[in-house]
Amino acid sequence: MSLYLDAVFKKPVGRTPVWIMRQAGRYLPEYRKIREKYDFLTLCKTPEAATEVTLQPIRRYGFDAAILFSDILVVPEAMGMELIFHENSGPRLSPVIHKEQDLEQLSIKHVPDRLCYVAETIKLLRKELNADRTLIGFSGSPFTLATYMVEGKPTKNFKHIKKMLYSDSRLLDKLLDILTQAIIRYLKLQIEAGAEALQIFDTWGGILPPHYFEKYSAYYMQTIIKELSPFKIPITLFTRGGENLMPALLACQPQMIGVDWTIDMSRAKQQMGNRVALQGNLDPAILYGSREVIGREVDRILAVFGKESGHVFNLGHGIFPDIPPENVSFLVDRVREQSVKLKE
Amino acid sequence: MSLYLDAVFKKPVGRTPVWIMRQAGRYLPEYRKIREKYDFLTLCKTPEAATEVTLQPIRRYGFDAAILFSDILVVPEAMGMELIFHENSGPRLSPVIHKEQDLEQLSIKHVPDRLCYVAETIKLLRKELNADRTLIGFSGSPFTLATYMVEGKPTKNFKHIKKMLYSDSRLLDKLLDILTQAIIRYLKLQIEAGAEALQIFDTWGGILPPHYFEKYSAYYMQTIIKELSPFKIPITLFTRGGENLMPALLACQPQMIGVDWTIDMSRAKQQMGNRVALQGNLDPAILYGSREVIGREVDRILAVFGKESGHVFNLGHGIFPDIPPENVSFLVDRVREQSVKLKE
Repeated sequence: MSLYLDAVFKKPVGRTPVWIMRQAGRYLPEYRKIREKYDFLTLCKTPEAATEVTLQPIRRYGFDAAILFSDILVVPEAMGMELIFHENSGPRLSPVIHKEQDLEQLSIKHVPDRLCYVAETIKLLRKELNADRTLIGFSGSPFTLATYMVEGKPTKNFKHIKKMLYSDSRLLDKLLDILTQAIIRYLKLQIEAGAEALQIFDTWGGILPPHYFEKYSAYYMQTIIKELSPFKIPITLFTRGGENLMPALLACQPQMIGVDWTIDMSRAKQQMGNRVALQGNLDPAILYGSREVIGREVDRILAVFGKESGHVFNLGHGIFPDIPPENVSFLVDRVREQSVKLKE
Repeated sequence: MSLYLDAVFKKPVGRTPVWIMRQAGRYLPEYRKIREKYDFLTLCKTPEAATEVTLQPIRRYGFDAAILFSDILVVPEAMGMELIFHENSGPRLSPVIHKEQDLEQLSIKHVPDRLCYVAETIKLLRKELNADRTLIGFSGSPFTLATYMVEGKPTKNFKHIKKMLYSDSRLLDKLLDILTQAIIRYLKLQIEAGAEALQIFDTWGGILPPHYFEKYSAYYMQTIIKELSPFKIPITLFTRGGENLMPALLACQPQMIGVDWTIDMSRAKQQMGNRVALQGNLDPAILYGSREVIGREVDRILAVFGKESGHVFNLGHGIFPDIPPENVSFLVDRVREQSVKLKE
């Protein structure tokens, strides 16, 4: 077993496992070098190169888990939408889903075939990774993917998805149903290829009032978790948002909940720690800060768990592209040294 | 007394008072017409015109409160920074505050003089407004204004303010101290001119981990509230963010807390309702929706309070510029009709 899996299943650990969201990314010079040769989407679709960038942060920092290098939007693409990444202004999906007929372009039939490059990457990674490093697969949540498919591009007000929700929720339910089926197929493909743990990123669930969050985001994540339960693979839910969403997240019955940095970890543990493992939750911007502050804040989070298992150290959101790599090194060392002391 | 003040002080009310954040704004054709003649900042600084746009939504919808038409960034401008509003990409403040010497450009000495146009607008408004409509003055919170002054322009990662917080918090404290003094002077000016209630907008406090929120946002708001307490003017705190921040907000001892739409109002009432009045909290995007849904969600929020006072109906954030004005009309009528029934 690996440290990550031990922590998720609350088995005793000698230290706290650590990885960071977006650990394979632009803040690493070796990643930027590979990106000179491949655009982002081609990198995702080239198993050898995707394997290489997945492994880069493991080699540099010895993280306890590797997360598949990919993007949540490859699923809408496999369902039939056109996906383009603009270098500076983010992803575009087209044609957008605004009315019933727009659903006709979507099909889950080819989801596994069109995403076979992901299975290929996972197989390569399993060969390369030591048994003590966990390989995490992932997907966006149905609501988060729907948001991108309805908005088509980055948005501040979430006008179109909310217009659909608040004026034609039946259509949104149809879209979420199709997405849920696509995601289940996609995650099964990842499990069969060798993913040892899964994370569902519900990046946009937190823009909803809590009673809508329950019905339009949590409900569909719960369906996915139920459907995948026979595989006995631990699933982490990560949502941006506050304590208000915790009851709905717990009701999904994941093994672990990813906590963002705006939540106090000791309150999260009080409210959820006896039911799930917790992941997080250092403010990613703290890596802009001094070592004194990074150290103090790492210690603060580790102290919440003390001797106990059930915690995977992570940032409360993805790492920013302009973080100095040496600060990540300092962070990882601190988590190791401090948690070894606490677990003694 | 007015319905708004009665609700804030939890005196019995015959119906729930209602106003909406950014009620004087682009969604109104009569506002867009005035904006053809004035750029945004000139409009803020021209008392007759600012009075006119403040009154437009009162005339159209009969809101129970009018909020001074202005912008939170006039305070940094009065302290010595250059402020420019770009029509599409938002405000710019320069030169940005990144190091100790950058503070030298700032002075609170001229804050009341340079903002005399605000006092002028308030005086005109008091003449025009019926006694049963409350005139609300406002300011940004120290942390929110500091964020704009350190970042200089709209940001996603809040890199510079967080870098300062996490590497040189002493400098940030100095900046927040100066801002707190400036805001106190500014709000006193508003009270003396005739503001009957105040709201402090802490738009960015919620980007902080809760223990930093306490020290770098709530603490300074508490100082302002304490300093203004002799005036007996009710103060509302509005922060974007979750339940996690509620204990710190309560500790500031405001009369009312503005709740954003990601919080369940019944949980907010359970946790805070016996100590403060609550304002909010319809998702502003619901005004894109159908009347059926707008009506249902309005009723849902009103039902939390039932017969009780202590609630001012509002959106959970400012109204979006592309909302159909007739939906606002429907909303206001619904709040009135439904709350009259509940209070009977």
